[in-house]
Formats: sequence, structure tokens, C-alpha cells
Amino acid sequence: MSDIIEGRNPVLELLRAGRYINKILISNSVQRHSVIAEILNLAKTKGTPVEFVDESVIRRLSFTAASQGIIAYVAPKEYVTLDDLLSISRSKNEPPLYCILDGIEDPQNLGAILRTADATGFHGIVVRERRAVGLTPIVAKASAGAIEYVPVARVANISQAIEFLKKVSVWVIGIDMAGITDYNKIDYKIPTAIVIGNEGAGLSDLVRKRCDTIASIPMKGKIGSLNASVATTVVMYEAFRQRR
Amino acid sequence: MSDIIEGRNPVLELLRAGRYINKILISNSVQRHSVIAEILNLAKTKGTPVEFVDESVIRRLSFTAASQGIIAYVAPKEYVTLDDLLSISRSKNEPPLYCILDGIEDPQNLGAILRTADATGFHGIVVRERRAVGLTPIVAKASAGAIEYVPVARVANISQAIEFLKKVSVWVIGIDMAGITDYNKIDYKIPTAIVIGNEGAGLSDLVRKRCDTIASIPMKGKIGSLNASVATTVVMYEAFRQRR
Repeated sequence: MSDIIEGRNPVLELLRAGRYINKILISNSVQRHSVIAEILNLAKTKGTPVEFVDESVIRRLSFTAASQGIIAYVAPKEYVTLDDLLSISRSKNEPPLYCILDGIEDPQNLGAILRTADATGFHGIVVRERRAVGLTPIVAKASAGAIEYVPVARVANISQAIEFLKKVSVWVIGIDMAGITDYNKIDYKIPTAIVIGNEGAGLSDLVRKRCDTIASIPMKGKIGSLNASVATTVVMYEAFRQRR
Repeated sequence: MSDIIEGRNPVLELLRAGRYINKILISNSVQRHSVIAEILNLAKTKGTPVEFVDESVIRRLSFTAASQGIIAYVAPKEYVTLDDLLSISRSKNEPPLYCILDGIEDPQNLGAILRTADATGFHGIVVRERRAVGLTPIVAKASAGAIEYVPVARVANISQAIEFLKKVSVWVIGIDMAGITDYNKIDYKIPTAIVIGNEGAGLSDLVRKRCDTIASIPMKGKIGSLNASVATTVVMYEAFRQRR
């Protein structure tokens, strides 16, 4: 079984990250571009097979209509465990910093969150197995390659994952409009996991109850809610600011 | 000519904002939901025609596959002028605070930016006419209704718009990875416009040269860039934090 990764930068990031690629297909009519040259170079160095094909082949295989004339076949991105996340934090010599997603369904949102997680130094993401988007090719594309660098643990039960993290002294902060503490009054320098709810429903009651504290993002205006990946970004950047 | 607005919350926000609605269509098989009840109530008060139709009618009319069984026909959302934006700032009794988009193409990004602009008290957005997304129905949906509340000026030329704003003492800050000043070292309490570039190409050289200063958003990680609406959010929340 293999996934398809589309687009110049995502394919380049695959190669850079050293991920095993079965094959790269490039459209015969692709425009010459420095990134394509870099891809060809790296593929040669790593012995990755590259095949030039008719544009129609790429179009037929593309999910996103944004392949930019290039796709790669890779083994599906593997999930890590919660223990792996803790090891990663230890190996970085930093207090743990995770983001738990309690049911994000939109692949664009998960992609954007992975991209921001990479930019802000989060050690990993936790997603749930059911009624949530996983590491699909569309997420890979939306992450602009960040999927290669940000470890993702997939768990059957978010509440249990929270309990697991609390036992190893990670402070768990739910993000919710109803939170009483302002998100920028929270200390993110200690071992921290932030928890983001579903796009429509927010945090589930069960998960909310497990959190050590609930923080809110202040808002003025008429709508009173933010896009889920935007809300995640605001908190991730505050954590990053504090840890810099 | 009319636009179609889809989904429970966007239609509710239309009604709340007092926008003129030609007609609301609701699927016969729509689930009972408190928002639908509120829509029916408000439509009755305002004398807006509501028609119950077969689910297939809604499906045929829907652009987004996320109509939730409800659509509204409205006159297309109108753009304002730069002068209007200045008047809006005056009427709020606040120093101007605008966001100039130098070629945002993705409707999801523009929708998310409108939503965050509403949440953070930005007075308005400036978009360009060509090679950029405007106020389309998909943007309306992605904005979760914020399109009703955030004024948008559309201009032929972003550089000229910047010159216009500089003449009335608005400080213009381009956001770019190459910026030397950290975005949170900028004073947003004075009259301010932030400028965000295109998703792929960033700020154009012409526009960059017109800015009073260029600020960057610090990043660690391997990817080295953020989604355009995410980058905008980070700066908008910093401006909001300073003005609170």
C-alpha cells in the first residue's frame, strides 16, 4: 500500500527528510523550476526511481488538482506512540510540548496545524482514531511537507491519552471559549499539552473534565469563534514566544 | 444578480447583520436544530421569504457540499473604498488598523482572515482586483459569517493603496520571512496597516519597497514558512493583544 504525495515542495521535503520513496512521477510538460532540479538531484543521490510521464497520467492520479506536475509514491506515514513522544522531548532536552486534537476533521486544518507545529517547535501531535482526519495525502499536501517532521501519535481514546500525560507530569490545557484563564496568562515553559476541540463542537465534555485547566482566546467582534487551526496557531505562537 | 450563502451559521449571521436577503431555502429533510429555529424566527420578524424544498434542490444549488440543508440568496457583498475604511476607524474612535492582502488566492485563507479580523478588531481589509480572490460565496462560508461584519476595500493597485494610507499617517508594515524586525517588537497601537503577500510568492518587490518597515515572524523547524492565513493570524493577535 502506498500514499501519493503531490506538489514540488512536499516531494522535495520527502526527499530531504530521508523518507523511503517507491517512485517519483514527473509530467513531461512540467515547467523547469529550481525545485524540480533539486528533486532530480536528490533523487539521483538517493537512488529513487524517477519516471517522466504524460501530463494526463499525473492528472488522473492527483487528488488535489495541485500536483504541479509531480507526485511521489511513498509508504503511508507512520504514527508514533505516546511513549515515543516522551522520548522525542527527552532527546531534544526540552520540557514536553504537545498538541492534542480532540476530533479535527478538516484535512486543511490538520495540515496547517502540522505546519505551525513545525514552525513553533512543538514535539508532537496527538490525534484520535475515530471521527477525525488522520495523516492522509491531502493533509500531507496542506502541511507543505511538515508532516515529515512533526511526529503524530494516534490514540483510541483522548481522555486516556490525557491521563497518561498527566501521570508523567505534563500540564494539560484545554482551549475553549468558555475558559476563564486568558491563554497568554498560562505558563507553557513547563511540560505542557494543549487540547483543541472539534471544528464545530469544540472540546467534548469528557475531555474538558480531564484537563488541568481551560484557557480561552479573547475575542471581540460579532462571530465569537475562530477557525480551529487559527485558534491552535494563536496558542502555539504564545508557547513558542515564552520558550524562546 | 445574487450570491448564494450556505450553512446555518452564515445564514444566521446574514439575518443578524441586517443584510437584505432575497429568499431563504431550507431542505425538507433538514434536522431540527436551535440555529434553524432562530433563523426562522428572525426571518419572520424581518419579513424574509422562506421556502421549504426537497433536499435535492439544495444539493444542486450548493457550491460547498456543506450547506447543512440551508441556503440564502443575497445581493453580492459590496466593497467599500479606502476613504470608507478611514471613516470606519474614525467612527470607532480608534487609530486605524487594517490588513492589506497583496494577492491572496485561496478562498479558505481569505475566509479565515476575515474571521480573525472580526475577532481581533481590525477595521477592514484591502484586497486587490486582479489575481486575487474576492468576496465569493465560498469565502463567505469559510468566514463563518464574518464577511458580514468586516469591511473590505478592493483596489486596482496595492502600491497606490499603501501610498494613500501613508499620506494619512498610517504606518505600513509588510510581513515577510526576510523582515529584520520581530513582529512582536512592532507598535500596533498607532495607525497601522499590515501587508500580507501571496500564498506562494510572498510580498511582491514593488509592494515591499512601499512599506515603512518589514517585520518577520520567527520560526524554528524545517519548513520555514507558515500558511498565509496562519501568518496573518499571528500578527493580528499581537496587534489585538497590544490594543487591549
